Parts: sequence; C-alpha cells; structure tokens
Amino acid sequence: MYIVCTDLEGVLVPEVWINVARWTGIDELKLTTRDISDYSALMTRRLEILRQHGITITDIQKVISLLDLMPGAQDFIEWLHGRLQMIVVSDTFREFADPLLQKMGWPLLFCHHLTIDGNGNITDFNLRQNDAKKMVVKKMQELNYKVIAIGDSYNDISMLRQAEMGILFNPPPNVINDNKDIRVVTSYMQLKNIIRDTIDNGHK
Amino acid sequence: MYIVCTDLEGVLVPEVWINVARWTGIDELKLTTRDISDYSALMTRRLEILRQHGITITDIQKVISLLDLMPGAQDFIEWLHGRLQMIVVSDTFREFADPLLQKMGWPLLFCHHLTIDGNGNITDFNLRQNDAKKMVVKKMQELNYKVIAIGDSYNDISMLRQAEMGILFNPPPNVINDNKDIRVVTSYMQLKNIIRDTIDNGHK
Repeated sequence: MYIVCTDLEGVLVPEVWINVARWTGIDELKLTTRDISDYSALMTRRLEILRQHGITITDIQKVISLLDLMPGAQDFIEWLHGRLQMIVVSDTFREFADPLLQKMGWPLLFCHHLTIDGNGNITDFNLRQNDAKKMVVKKMQELNYKVIAIGDSYNDISMLRQAEMGILFNPPPNVINDNKDIRVVTSYMQLKNIIRDTIDNGHK
Repeated sequence: MYIVCTDLEGVLVPEVWINVARWTGIDELKLTTRDISDYSALMTRRLEILRQHGITITDIQKVISLLDLMPGAQDFIEWLHGRLQMIVVSDTFREFADPLLQKMGWPLLFCHHLTIDGNGNITDFNLRQNDAKKMVVKKMQELNYKVIAIGDSYNDISMLRQAEMGILFNPPPNVINDNKDIRVVTSYMQLKNIIRDTIDNGHK
C-alpha cells in the first residue's frame, strides 16, 4: 500500500516566512531553507529578528490566517481522497499551522512546536527529532507502507531519497542542480499522473 | 506532543460486520473480535461465509455506505481539530473504509487491505503487519509523540498498553473483566475531559 508524504510550504501553501517578511516589511525574514540549508541556524536567526522588532505569535498567526492554499492545492487534496492517503510532513510549527490545516480539511501534520511566553513572545523552537521528515517516511515504511514523498527544497531531500518515490515540486534551480537524479514536476496535473500510474501498478 | 490513535468500529462507527449480518440475514457474520480474539481466524471464517452465499465487495460496500457515525462521533472529531491530531487505527480494510472516512472528513486511517477478483469476490485478506495497531503507536512514539489510544475490544488491548494513555471506550463486560487495570469511559464527554486534562499538562 502506498501513502503520500508531502511538504507543506512551497507545495500546498505559500512560504509562510516570505509573507511574514512582506507584512512586517522586514526583508531579512524572507530567507528560507531554499537559501540557508541549516534549519536550526535559520530559525534561531528568525526568532532573534522577531524579538528585536517585538513581533509576537499573534502577529504571525494573523498573517498566516490570511494566506490561501496555492491554486490547485485544494483540488489535489480532494482528488487524493479515496485514492491514496496523504500526510503533511513539514518543518513548520503546530502554533503556525492550524489556520492552514483548517483550509485543507485537517489532514494529519507531522511537524515541530514552539515555546511561547505569557506575552506571546516566541522564546524558543523545539524540533521534534533530527532529520524529522526522513524519519516520518522511515516509520511509514516500518508500518509496511510504500511512500511517495513530495517536496520543493533542501530540507526535503533526505525524505525524498528515503521514499520509494521522491518528487521535487516546483523547486528553485539551485535545488534541481544539486539533486539532478531526483524527478521534478511543475504542476499538480503531473503529480496526479505519477500517482495514478503508481496506484494502477500496486495497492493503494 | 500528544497524538490520538483511535479504533474505528465501536468507537466512531457501528460494527460493520454486525450490520452486514443484519442486512444479509446471516447470523454467523455477527461474530466480532469481541467474541473471537484471533482476528485471522475470524476473517478466514467470514470470507468463507461470504463465498458460500455469493456476497461480493459491492454488496458489503453498499451496507457500509448506509451506516452513520455513532451519535456524537462527528462532534468529537471536530472538537479535536486544533486541539490534538487524530489517527484512526483499525483492523478494517481499505476497501471497506472509504464511505466511513468520507463522513468523518477523511482522517488518516492505518488498516489492512483485501484481495478482490474480477467478479468482486473477496478472495483473501492481507494484514499489514503483525500486531498492526500496537505497531502504529510504537512508530508514533519513535517520531517523539506521546499517544492517547482509544479502543473497545480485545484487538485494541496491546495498542492501549503500548500507549502513554490507553482508554477503553464502551467495552463489553468480558473485555473489562479481562483488563481491569485499563481505564474505561462510556461517553465522548468523558474522553474530551481526559484529553483536555492531558493537553493542559503538556504540549499538544
């Protein structure tokens, strides 16, 4: 039986931090894992910037609640229902994700969580485990599922390589260049075709 | 972070096979894991009976599509959204589950799958792995989640014992008697209270 493990930002929803940067006017918040591949270093820097500017969890949740799914994402999620099950595997944080999950019909999300003080300041971030995305794929395989993994960036690569089928969805050129052996698609239509072929040749 | 692993039949939806028995008038199909604890023996017997009576997957899917969630189940599922994530962990089969999943808003389901021939006859059943329910809890723990597991019958016991918190939901007297150390609840209200207390004392 196959199961889909898909990244969130860049595949189903826009990049959260790029939108926080736009909303706050703080250009440095535009950096993502597409730019800095060390996620802990990136998050530490982001939290520093938030502190310096007095931006709270409430401010960020407000921006996130204004984000829409990417065009076609809702249709893709609904198309999967009854075909293949989908798990969202992300380096985001529980406290950010709820408005987006609601729009998607509350799919299962494996991610991290934040530490927030009584004033809404984000004081720390807690990564669930090392190489958390790859570990999700590994544990699904240990439950005897085969995995179709979908991602767009450096922090998805180990998950894509662990999966029976790894797919880059609309990745930037540097991610493609650094991973020329991984299949690239640029539309949900192409994703659907790959998934349809996979189901036809095995058990859903 | 906590996650809920819940059984399907007897907790969120009625027992499928009892309803198949009612619909077909074949009393022997009323046996469940509440009566025979060896699931493979039970399923082998069920498939024999279906074959004898010429009952196909289409017939069974028709019965299942007529089943409603148990009263209060939909509200419980919606109440969990944004509080704790829920995974359905069942000894049912993919080919049976879709109409029920649709009514529940397509939660993630870990279960088994059937082998069906070109005429719709169920020729075999494929258990995903040994002790499949307990393994789901174990793999969630290996992803650094703590698990609240909910079940009602013998085939749930090893999952409930593996979880940080195991809860029997409306179990029959023999299951209670054989497992006197496991907490018993009789309503979704009680389940909500336990979950609320757990979240208040830890990370969701």
